[in-house]
Amino acid sequence: MVENGLEALVATSPANVFYSSDLCPYGDTFVLLPLEREIEPAIITSISAPIPVVVMSPPWISDVRYFGEFYTETRWAKEPLDDSERILIAAQESWELTRKLNPTALLFEVLEERGIIKGTIGVDESILPKSHIFWRQIKERLPAIDAVPVSRLFREIRMIKTEEEIRRIKTAVKITEKAWEAALDSAREGMTEKEFAYVYESTILKEGGRPTSHMGVYGAPIALGRRTAFVDLAFPSDYRLRRGDLIRFDGGCSYIGYGCDMARTAVLGEPSEKQKRYYDALSEGVQLAVEMATPREMASKIFNAVVERVRDAGIPHYRRHHVGHGWGLEGYNPPLIGPRDNTELEEGMLLCLETPYYEVGFGGLMLEDIIVVKKSGPQYLTQFNKQLCAIR
Amino acid sequence: MVENGLEALVATSPANVFYSSDLCPYGDTFVLLPLEREIEPAIITSISAPIPVVVMSPPWISDVRYFGEFYTETRWAKEPLDDSERILIAAQESWELTRKLNPTALLFEVLEERGIIKGTIGVDESILPKSHIFWRQIKERLPAIDAVPVSRLFREIRMIKTEEEIRRIKTAVKITEKAWEAALDSAREGMTEKEFAYVYESTILKEGGRPTSHMGVYGAPIALGRRTAFVDLAFPSDYRLRRGDLIRFDGGCSYIGYGCDMARTAVLGEPSEKQKRYYDALSEGVQLAVEMATPREMASKIFNAVVERVRDAGIPHYRRHHVGHGWGLEGYNPPLIGPRDNTELEEGMLLCLETPYYEVGFGGLMLEDIIVVKKSGPQYLTQFNKQLCAIR
Repeated sequence: MVENGLEALVATSPANVFYSSDLCPYGDTFVLLPLEREIEPAIITSISAPIPVVVMSPPWISDVRYFGEFYTETRWAKEPLDDSERILIAAQESWELTRKLNPTALLFEVLEERGIIKGTIGVDESILPKSHIFWRQIKERLPAIDAVPVSRLFREIRMIKTEEEIRRIKTAVKITEKAWEAALDSAREGMTEKEFAYVYESTILKEGGRPTSHMGVYGAPIALGRRTAFVDLAFPSDYRLRRGDLIRFDGGCSYIGYGCDMARTAVLGEPSEKQKRYYDALSEGVQLAVEMATPREMASKIFNAVVERVRDAGIPHYRRHHVGHGWGLEGYNPPLIGPRDNTELEEGMLLCLETPYYEVGFGGLMLEDIIVVKKSGPQYLTQFNKQLCAIR
Repeated sequence: MVENGLEALVATSPANVFYSSDLCPYGDTFVLLPLEREIEPAIITSISAPIPVVVMSPPWISDVRYFGEFYTETRWAKEPLDDSERILIAAQESWELTRKLNPTALLFEVLEERGIIKGTIGVDESILPKSHIFWRQIKERLPAIDAVPVSRLFREIRMIKTEEEIRRIKTAVKITEKAWEAALDSAREGMTEKEFAYVYESTILKEGGRPTSHMGVYGAPIALGRRTAFVDLAFPSDYRLRRGDLIRFDGGCSYIGYGCDMARTAVLGEPSEKQKRYYDALSEGVQLAVEMATPREMASKIFNAVVERVRDAGIPHYRRHHVGHGWGLEGYNPPLIGPRDNTELEEGMLLCLETPYYEVGFGGLMLEDIIVVKKSGPQYLTQFNKQLCAIR
């Protein structure tokens, strides 16, 4: 905030709200973080769903203001009550006193109450309730405030991971690796992609993770045979596994809001000469990316060296738009290890490093590892065997 | 479009893109639907992820334009190829010819190409790439076009369900009911909420559905004991089921993009007098809502009658902000069966009708049914026993 001349930050997107407050929002939510330590932060959230949200993921910020309309009866609650029940009672009672309906009006009220009425404030514009009128409304209500968009600043801040974030992503990786191992153990000729994906996903559930999916439509990011050429979003099909088929997964699961993105490839039976040669070349690329991922190295420099290495090592026609990326609450995050990103790496950045290769009629091969950039050398979060796994 | 004087509609949010095109988007996507039948519709989507998206959920629109950067090698592909592989080759080759990077510029190009250069067009503003500059850019590039926001219009159109939408939601309901039945069958004293939720969620996966969760943080919308007072978003905990405890679930699973929202309540052992009396009153309310949900009935009228009925039937202090809502691709959808919604119901609307009651220290009770409004009387999608289920 000091560097950017900001009096306060306002988070609005689910990722930025969760990051700034520990509260996992459901519906419109603002988190106000003032620059001055003497000014108290605040959360503005809906009374309808966030009662359980606040109860279940208690934020570190104690001033929570509710808007909307929702009824939970608290009149007959008698001790002994547990903490969750007490929080719920306090939330419901505070809302019943004010019964505000509009989150934006409540935000402006809290800003005034805090004395944040002039200077520049940063508003996360990525998912802003009533965005088309917000900027005009704040100008009208608080004319001496200059509100500027800061979703990019939030992304920059989130590039460097805290210990707790690394711990959660590591747990997501462990669960994913167990699920992949269980799926590989179950692999046999004639098994369908759907059956294989079910072993993978139900293991994730059993281990306390959540299978990640897209609009509820996609299944596990797993493919068999020539379908491995279809990037990372395959819908599991009725295709049956054959001898010599590639088996590829790319993605993971999530754990307390944090997912992971890793990939491994296997073959049912002995790999062919081409499968082996290509995989080894790709794997050399990832190895070089990991070695180069040190503080002050430039993203684009790593990209160029890695593509060159894969070409030299066995895939002379190799083309790729990036060989890795940051990762966090929103999934893909900066930096991008690509040709036009000149970000210098820093201690504490978490990177997913990968050199996928997709060829129609042949399949897709890849290794993707997750590391944290450290002065003392890369800290691997992925532990699973990095070889092209041959399943007997 | 005719009613609203629109020359074309542009869908941008995942729900509206999926609804208009059958394409399940990944990243920025536009769907252009011109008013005139002679003008061809178009999809603008990213080459990086949507290759598999287009392959896996083929849209009915054949003119798909790609932007971005992604490489899949197609040079060595030889027949026999399957349809997916052929689509993928065509997509990759068409992108390699143009290599456009910017979706918005590509949209403007397609509008010009189609001769849509004057009059009013409706742009779904709900999730618009680079929304803060979009409106200025379209004004600059196509000055005779008047672009207006239409996310509300999309919501109105989507209130009436197609047969295919009802079929998918019905399948989601069936899967949810199987999972709830399996969870109830497994219920025993001392079982944790997490164990109970695992039976529910793994059954959903096995039946081909996707457990719905929120930011990957939430588990199944299931609660035991006094925790049933925590609305619908409980994180499954280590709480152990006791005799006399309420067991409540509220939500469902999704199937090919369509979820469901239903609820049932059970008790381990014999229900108490209060549990029984309250449940019966709530259940009478839902029954009345279903009876009243006929074409031309007003949402607010149903609300008032239902709240009155629950009060008369056994919960005199009953308070509620709505007793039902529409449901669709985005989850909650209009109409809201609440005090301020004067929508007149229409044939083909799908409604989730519910009268939840939450009391701290006691618990939460509810029945939620899903129906389609029909002239001939309500078509129930939920089939599971509507009684307060007593588990022996």
